Amino acid sequence: MKKLVLLASAIPTFAFAAPDRTVELRDAALKDDVAWDITEGLTTEVGQRMPGTEAEARARDWSVKKLKALGFKNVRVEPFDMPVWVRGEEKAEITLPYPQPLILAALGNSGATPASGLEADVVHFATFEDLKAAPDSAVKGKIVFVSHAMKPTQDGSSYGQYGQARFTGPNVAAKKGAAAIVIRSIGTDSHRNPHTGSTNFEAGVTAIPAAALANPDADNLERIFARTKTVRLKLTLTPRNIGVRQSGNVVAEVPGTDPEAGIVLIGGHLDSWDLGTGAIDDASGVAITAAAAKRIMDAGKPRRTIRLVWFGAEEVGVLGGKAYFERHKADNHAVAAESDFGADRIWRFEVKLPEGAKPVADRLAAALAPLGITRGKGEAGGGADVGPIIRGGVSAIDLNQDGTHYFDLHHTPDDTLDKVDPEALRQNVAAWTAMLSIVANAPENISTARP
Amino acid sequence: MKKLVLLASAIPTFAFAAPDRTVELRDAALKDDVAWDITEGLTTEVGQRMPGTEAEARARDWSVKKLKALGFKNVRVEPFDMPVWVRGEEKAEITLPYPQPLILAALGNSGATPASGLEADVVHFATFEDLKAAPDSAVKGKIVFVSHAMKPTQDGSSYGQYGQARFTGPNVAAKKGAAAIVIRSIGTDSHRNPHTGSTNFEAGVTAIPAAALANPDADNLERIFARTKTVRLKLTLTPRNIGVRQSGNVVAEVPGTDPEAGIVLIGGHLDSWDLGTGAIDDASGVAITAAAAKRIMDAGKPRRTIRLVWFGAEEVGVLGGKAYFERHKADNHAVAAESDFGADRIWRFEVKLPEGAKPVADRLAAALAPLGITRGKGEAGGGADVGPIIRGGVSAIDLNQDGTHYFDLHHTPDDTLDKVDPEALRQNVAAWTAMLSIVANAPENISTARP
Repeated sequence: MKKLVLLASAIPTFAFAAPDRTVELRDAALKDDVAWDITEGLTTEVGQRMPGTEAEARARDWSVKKLKALGFKNVRVEPFDMPVWVRGEEKAEITLPYPQPLILAALGNSGATPASGLEADVVHFATFEDLKAAPDSAVKGKIVFVSHAMKPTQDGSSYGQYGQARFTGPNVAAKKGAAAIVIRSIGTDSHRNPHTGSTNFEAGVTAIPAAALANPDADNLERIFARTKTVRLKLTLTPRNIGVRQSGNVVAEVPGTDPEAGIVLIGGHLDSWDLGTGAIDDASGVAITAAAAKRIMDAGKPRRTIRLVWFGAEEVGVLGGKAYFERHKADNHAVAAESDFGADRIWRFEVKLPEGAKPVADRLAAALAPLGITRGKGEAGGGADVGPIIRGGVSAIDLNQDGTHYFDLHHTPDDTLDKVDPEALRQNVAAWTAMLSIVANAPENISTARP
Repeated sequence: MKKLVLLASAIPTFAFAAPDRTVELRDAALKDDVAWDITEGLTTEVGQRMPGTEAEARARDWSVKKLKALGFKNVRVEPFDMPVWVRGEEKAEITLPYPQPLILAALGNSGATPASGLEADVVHFATFEDLKAAPDSAVKGKIVFVSHAMKPTQDGSSYGQYGQARFTGPNVAAKKGAAAIVIRSIGTDSHRNPHTGSTNFEAGVTAIPAAALANPDADNLERIFARTKTVRLKLTLTPRNIGVRQSGNVVAEVPGTDPEAGIVLIGGHLDSWDLGTGAIDDASGVAITAAAAKRIMDAGKPRRTIRLVWFGAEEVGVLGGKAYFERHKADNHAVAAESDFGADRIWRFEVKLPEGAKPVADRLAAALAPLGITRGKGEAGGGADVGPIIRGGVSAIDLNQDGTHYFDLHHTPDDTLDKVDPEALRQNVAAWTAMLSIVANAPENISTARP
């Protein structure tokens, strides 16, 4: 009799789902080699993957081959067109008062100097706010130098504030009539590796030469300004806009058993800045998400289809994310998640899920706790590439990587494979595997968009 | 009665020397700002100080002014002529099998490629010994790649062994008919900052293009060789020999009371490689020795004259050290010591002193112990610039700096002021002050050359 009772009480569970293999899959993922294999492969066999260039096209070819070999279904490239900016020569020197070279890198969308260079007096602003407040007369015809230094934060939140000097500083300086602008790199290291990244000029504003100095070079210029206000720089920056070229998103799927349950959209971005080899930004992100999806695929069909997207041209304005949104906004997305904050360990998760899916978040908390991951108090935001989809109303899960050292490397020549810790990478794969196991198989409705 | 006995027993000490102020001077030096001021000034107001160039000449002008302002006597430049090599353009790319740029720096005395570059197959040697053992046929017409990786040691002893790939690797490759050579940087970091340094070709051997890859780039090339033996590189290196120019040693003195007691020769080198600003190599060395000498000077005339030399053109063959030796070998040098191993704390001292000067070494041990400095078992060797004088028979004292991180920065763009720890710099000044206080005032004969 006892046996029969037990059997009866077990039935409701079996009616919902197959036995939960989350713990088993999570722990097996701590021995993962697939994510390393992808990160190592992309950085070695392709290297830098500048958006819209032939290098990014080679990366798409590489990716299609790799994702097919891993057993994913519906592997394809979804192309889109984009305007392409490429780096040219870049040199800088202090000509007065203490002649010496400086190391810098042009910002994406920077204008060019004449090929023979541009020499002008420098005006120093300690912060971006000071530049904004300055009268045009203080800036006109000069090279602007903004020197404030970013400090690291675990959640990367300082990027938004300090990043303004890069995001909009050149536009502000151009509108005030500056000849050019150099900013202290938006980064937290102290190496001679400048941090590039996109800047944007408003329609009608002519792009001026805009570059980031390596932090030790910005230190030096600040020390010189502490001695004298008469400082001259000569800049030679010859980037070019080479017109419209093709980029694309690489898409692969793990088909689910229940099309009505919606798609679990995951991924990272395939492109990288040209200075490094894009190891932590974002070969590791595409690698982590693919490795985790493969583990779910190899364990048997999940309830929901997992759609893995390796986005193109993220670095120059989230162009892949926008193209994906335009093409797929009508698809039945249940939830989206993205890995694009390096390769260090995940320390926190946050969700944006409908009320009825509270047990899903609880199961996530239980499955992620042994990996050292706690539940955050905020609402998941997704990330740059899945942002348009999430802002369209789709649920989101964030697995937050530790960003304390991320901005030491971000957008620098130093973003190379040796910076990836294989053990931290495995912790990421284990967390993503556990998350996908729970989310892709959840019997509950997890869709915010379609309750 | 008791008082009288004590007084009598103290007399012999007073007969030898003035009251010993070593401890007082040492401890005051732990608050030194002079060494930082010099290090900061040279790296900010001059920057790189490539031997034989106008930048090194500006550094000499700066130094004369600074040393006079600090109160030193007999401040002068002792010029000498030298052949000058300067860096040109430097670019490298893998053309097969995986096209991508690499970061490298030409080695001093490197030959040049055509302005349009040189493309050739690459032959990989895991060690310098493998290159030496290879038949000419394996090397002829190819670009040699030597990939062994240096590991850090506290005493820097690994430099001699691993450095062979740079010191003589290009000569060996040239004699076997190689088109060019790229070596893994002789360095212990993992940043995209290549380590330059001199190489030498035998008389009659034509200099081939020779460069050091940043460590992450050497890693990448090694990973590619693990996949295929067919690798091609394109190198563009356009360094030039610009003929004979002038360099010089900057000399300053603290005159002593007893010319017969011999000169205490100390210093470091004023020149630096062109990639960084020569903060740890060797602005800190000239700064430490000057700051310590000034403390002795300000405390009253020492017994022995202290001669401070900021040598020129050390990096390209110890030319300043050799010129000093030729000019001053007949001078009455009692002892020599040099600071040219960075700016980290001193952990050990060693001496080469005559038998009768054992009490001097014991007093050094006692005075340095509170700074965390122990007595080593070896014999002091001096350093590159004072090497010729010491090999001529002069006594030597080594104050060994911790070199564990020295080769992270050595000869790279990353040798900048931010890498200098002001507290470690002060510990250096305190150790040098204590050493000079004891050695310059020792009543014993300390001269090995003139017993």
